[in-house]
Amino acid sequence: MSTPQWKLSPDRLFDPDPAQRRVARTLYESIRDLPLICPHGHVDPRLLADPEYGFGTPADLLIIPDHYIFRMLYSQGVPMEALGVPRVDGGPVETDHRRIWQTFADHFHLFRGTPTGVWLAAELAEVFGVGAKLTSATAQDIYDEIAAKLATPAFRPRALFERFHIETLCTTDAASDPLAHHQALRASGWKGDVRPTFRPDAVVNLDTPGWGQEIERLSAASGIDITSYSAFIRAVEQRRAFFKQMGATATDHAALSAYTAELSPAEAEAVFKRALQGEASAEDVQRFTGHMMMEMARMSIEDGLVMQFHVGAFRGHNSFVASRFGKDKGADIPVASEFTCNLHPLLNRYGNDTRLTLIVFCLDEATYARELAPLAGHYPAMRLGPPWWFFDSINGMVRYRDLVHETAGLYNTVGFNDDTRAFPSIPARHDVWRRVECNWLAGLVVRGLIDEEDSVEMASASAYGLAKTAYRL
Amino acid sequence: MSTPQWKLSPDRLFDPDPAQRRVARTLYESIRDLPLICPHGHVDPRLLADPEYGFGTPADLLIIPDHYIFRMLYSQGVPMEALGVPRVDGGPVETDHRRIWQTFADHFHLFRGTPTGVWLAAELAEVFGVGAKLTSATAQDIYDEIAAKLATPAFRPRALFERFHIETLCTTDAASDPLAHHQALRASGWKGDVRPTFRPDAVVNLDTPGWGQEIERLSAASGIDITSYSAFIRAVEQRRAFFKQMGATATDHAALSAYTAELSPAEAEAVFKRALQGEASAEDVQRFTGHMMMEMARMSIEDGLVMQFHVGAFRGHNSFVASRFGKDKGADIPVASEFTCNLHPLLNRYGNDTRLTLIVFCLDEATYARELAPLAGHYPAMRLGPPWWFFDSINGMVRYRDLVHETAGLYNTVGFNDDTRAFPSIPARHDVWRRVECNWLAGLVVRGLIDEEDSVEMASASAYGLAKTAYRL
Amino acid sequence: MSTPQWKLSPDRLFDPDPAQRRVARTLYESIRDLPLICPHGHVDPRLLADPEYGFGTPADLLIIPDHYIFRMLYSQGVPMEALGVPRVDGGPVETDHRRIWQTFADHFHLFRGTPTGVWLAAELAEVFGVGAKLTSATAQDIYDEIAAKLATPAFRPRALFERFHIETLCTTDAASDPLAHHQALRASGWKGDVRPTFRPDAVVNLDTPGWGQEIERLSAASGIDITSYSAFIRAVEQRRAFFKQMGATATDHAALSAYTAELSPAEAEAVFKRALQGEASAEDVQRFTGHMMMEMARMSIEDGLVMQFHVGAFRGHNSFVASRFGKDKGADIPVASEFTCNLHPLLNRYGNDTRLTLIVFCLDEATYARELAPLAGHYPAMRLGPPWWFFDSINGMVRYRDLVHETAGLYNTVGFNDDTRAFPSIPARHDVWRRVECNWLAGLVVRGLIDEEDSVEMASASAYGLAKTAYRL
Repeated sequence: MSTPQWKLSPDRLFDPDPAQRRVARTLYESIRDLPLICPHGHVDPRLLADPEYGFGTPADLLIIPDHYIFRMLYSQGVPMEALGVPRVDGGPVETDHRRIWQTFADHFHLFRGTPTGVWLAAELAEVFGVGAKLTSATAQDIYDEIAAKLATPAFRPRALFERFHIETLCTTDAASDPLAHHQALRASGWKGDVRPTFRPDAVVNLDTPGWGQEIERLSAASGIDITSYSAFIRAVEQRRAFFKQMGATATDHAALSAYTAELSPAEAEAVFKRALQGEASAEDVQRFTGHMMMEMARMSIEDGLVMQFHVGAFRGHNSFVASRFGKDKGADIPVASEFTCNLHPLLNRYGNDTRLTLIVFCLDEATYARELAPLAGHYPAMRLGPPWWFFDSINGMVRYRDLVHETAGLYNTVGFNDDTRAFPSIPARHDVWRRVECNWLAGLVVRGLIDEEDSVEMASASAYGLAKTAYRL
Repeated sequence: MSTPQWKLSPDRLFDPDPAQRRVARTLYESIRDLPLICPHGHVDPRLLADPEYGFGTPADLLIIPDHYIFRMLYSQGVPMEALGVPRVDGGPVETDHRRIWQTFADHFHLFRGTPTGVWLAAELAEVFGVGAKLTSATAQDIYDEIAAKLATPAFRPRALFERFHIETLCTTDAASDPLAHHQALRASGWKGDVRPTFRPDAVVNLDTPGWGQEIERLSAASGIDITSYSAFIRAVEQRRAFFKQMGATATDHAALSAYTAELSPAEAEAVFKRALQGEASAEDVQRFTGHMMMEMARMSIEDGLVMQFHVGAFRGHNSFVASRFGKDKGADIPVASEFTCNLHPLLNRYGNDTRLTLIVFCLDEATYARELAPLAGHYPAMRLGPPWWFFDSINGMVRYRDLVHETAGLYNTVGFNDDTRAFPSIPARHDVWRRVECNWLAGLVVRGLIDEEDSVEMASASAYGLAKTAYRL
Repeated sequence: MSTPQWKLSPDRLFDPDPAQRRVARTLYESIRDLPLICPHGHVDPRLLADPEYGFGTPADLLIIPDHYIFRMLYSQGVPMEALGVPRVDGGPVETDHRRIWQTFADHFHLFRGTPTGVWLAAELAEVFGVGAKLTSATAQDIYDEIAAKLATPAFRPRALFERFHIETLCTTDAASDPLAHHQALRASGWKGDVRPTFRPDAVVNLDTPGWGQEIERLSAASGIDITSYSAFIRAVEQRRAFFKQMGATATDHAALSAYTAELSPAEAEAVFKRALQGEASAEDVQRFTGHMMMEMARMSIEDGLVMQFHVGAFRGHNSFVASRFGKDKGADIPVASEFTCNLHPLLNRYGNDTRLTLIVFCLDEATYARELAPLAGHYPAMRLGPPWWFFDSINGMVRYRDLVHETAGLYNTVGFNDDTRAFPSIPARHDVWRRVECNWLAGLVVRGLIDEEDSVEMASASAYGLAKTAYRL
């Protein structure tokens, strides 16, 4: 019996209707080779700072750090230890990476028809040149094939960055981060455009575990002794200036809800003091985050950094997993969100100011057409980010345009973010977006909603121009 | 280079699949020429009362009064002043209508693939006979073309009413409105069927700005001195009778939530007294509106006026825009809605009475399949209105049938409402509905869910019969 | 004029695109003849316990007991009395079953394009061999045709059970049910696999009308005098053991919300005592149900019964209908649901235990992608049930996969449940599921998301294997 092979159709993700498919393919060919703009993601800058950085084994690269993968196997009863996910307490986990890989391959059917399955197939076939489909039988041969590739200079991160045709890649960095890797990268003379993004969640959200230490780190990084709210604000402003000087064009903020509301200076000072004394209440936490979103919008107007706001994840829903394996382990679950009332204070105060760009991301698709598209379709300062996380998927993208476009149009959206930690998956993720967008536009063409001339401009904007403009790159 | 032209395919909005398209086209041809029933909208009756009414310039007609258009340009940083939108304070705005038109044309790409873009293309091409696609380059020629048409008698509102084949058009009128234009229209002997609709929001919602004056107006119009709740009810009943005598067959009510609940007579009296004294609380406001919805259902059972209920818009979300330009300026944003519990009191009291027709409209599509279709698919008195506002769109209509039909069926819905202030857009709006509905039915035919015989009857009901029956026209 | 006939295309419910249709048909042919697994439903076990059970007239079989049907006619003003639905007070209702049938046929157009319409057409054509389409004109002939069939031994329930190729059918039974029909069925020597399901809602939900009597019945059935919470728990455990011994593999629980939270033993005892004294508060009711869900999960881990949880129906929304005709009369309306926070206590305590299978059903599709798929795609104990009730429909199934699959994959779902009281509709319901699933998989194939080899395995799992495995059959 011959080994089954990946079947990556050149027309994949396009509608089967021949007329639509023809238009989709033509559009796709017109934008396929545009450079990648990666304005938001979680690639570790170390990868690119060190010219000799190596990815380790195939399991190190593709399984152990990827919560998209191990959470699916975990949901079907595979212990995370069997996948080599490190325990917080240093307890024993599988260390034989060939066995980890075999377990993964034995369960690869779980990813049939999922975005993770699509990304992995494309990554194995197109980045690593693996012809055989991953199965229990082919697992070890494929392991060898990937391992051999990873040992070559062509699979160092910088070489892949260039091969992937990445024009700009932005990382996500804590407010107190000294950006040493970014400094090293710049000093190295390598020409890749890699930029930090200012993400102050750990100091803004008063309930961050170890918030006090985070404030100490911020004091150290900024050289400002943070003993008051006003000193805190000065320190934040100082770090924003430093990030900007290091090439940042954006900030990023995450919260469970989109709540925004300004505190009086006295209230802000009082809440901050309680937090310093370890006495902040749950209400303090929410009000302070809501207040800081207002402050961040104010600062963005002043310094020109684009403001990103990611709303709606209940982090660490599974206490057992959180305590045993730590955070970001596939147990973050979305909650219903509300934007119309929650963003009202911020948008009323700053939403008419064209110097501000506020890009909102959400995990509650019920708000796309009901709240987010009408808001983005009215306020000059607001833009809507691409489908995020669970919705960074074929259907997620289709629903996004279906629900958003008619009210917000194309130009109040900002193209694509791959948002990934998995560096080699970047081309596959952008390719899914580009294919789905071209197919969507082809659908508009064959239904007579736009003409082909318009569709070509829209495809290019979606694949490249919108992200570049919105992030001021 | 030749000037680009509108490409209005005769098969536009139909699925590209040849089998489905063939059925859709046949269905569409069977209903395309049916008269238009316009049972809910915001056309100013003055247009039709005055036989010589002129629309002004192309900007007067198509841009300055249309919040669908200027909100999109505003969202991309174009000041509303540059589009000639009048300021509340009389401050300066652009008065050169050719420049307004040029600014609009320069940004026409914002509407690519949106319902506004589709309506405008159809309106320019089919109402005004404009062949060239609107671009920066063609703007001034098109302005001339439209202006020339508008100067001719064929472009008086009454002439267009007849050309559009409108069978009945209902306007929306305040409770205290003397309906002078409607009286003039009737007196003129013109045969167009134009009817008022009773919309008492300004007196029912106690937080209406200037509510006291509205009550005075209602006193004057009804000849009843409204110094008590019971007098208020008598005045409302008096006005309903007057509207009915003037041809009205329906009332209309708008509220942020669908809350309904009866107050005792003493409570109602007490709340109303507080309102008269300017002392109504926020809770009073909500409870009184909820109570009045019950009262309106009771009155509808008595006088036979169909009751419309529009739920879910946060009006005037942008304080800056509201204070500078007034209301209805594109800054109304939907909120999540709840119907199952909120309508429970009203439906329990009156929902089994076949004399009542309650037509519900919403801005929260999450309630279509979950709440509204099951309610409309059970209570004899309840019907579901067509997709409203942001959802009066191609995708909005597709989702509406997708989500509503399987539970409520076709006959618990009420056909289409164009709901427009923009008189010349009426045919384009109905045409979108008719095309989308025929395509939906064609999809059912080619999937074997209905046969062609049934589809023909359903298409006709959707385009014409359902609206006529539901609104008792 | 010739009599119109049912047009049941062999390709019905498949996409019209020829490429997709070809794949769908091939997949469907590969699974069409697999036996039916019916792990959740409401068939009365009496039907199968008595070998000579007869269904009565066509109206007895198809109209009078089917709330899907009479609620639609009621919504259009047909009194339920005219359909022979018995009144609680024994008041007069139509007794001429030919007239009932005629009224139904006169309104059959209401079901055009609805799942009920599709099921009925398939049932009449394929179970009863009726060629003519049901209309006012054909009603009486069709009545005769069905009545004649029903009089034959081939239309006894057991004969149909075998003809339908049902492998296993689970009923739904109260905690205190002695399972006499199940005992008779087993004693009869007939080989059909029919199993009870343990549904203790009436004793778990303290606000059940007549809860005290239900507790007395439970005491009697268990032989445990339930005078305390701890005795109650022992009685529940005793009944679970009895059900398991009688073949049950699952329990079932329904609640308005998904709220779960453990009470301390003292609190549980106190709440239960208040309930015994008829003094349970609304808060007690909610907290006790939430607590019992935790207890049921604990018991399922101990005894291995699969736990089903049906969330989100506001039962008996129409008081008039409830008081005149009783419960389950088409007036149950869904409400918005929340799972991320509500299931947090249960999943944190038991969700990592692979001995538990918790299958969740919901009536709020907004939670599919936002909450349920992420939860099922992470917790080993959780699975997602198929689309339920209003969503057991063509579009409901399409949306289910569209919203769930990319995050949860196929293997965290559990195949199909027909959930029906209408025994002869079982094949039609499974057939809709199988067709829609094959068409969905064909869509993945023609878009290059999966290959045909994978699609064949997935189709079989969806039609048969997943249900069998999830319910431990």
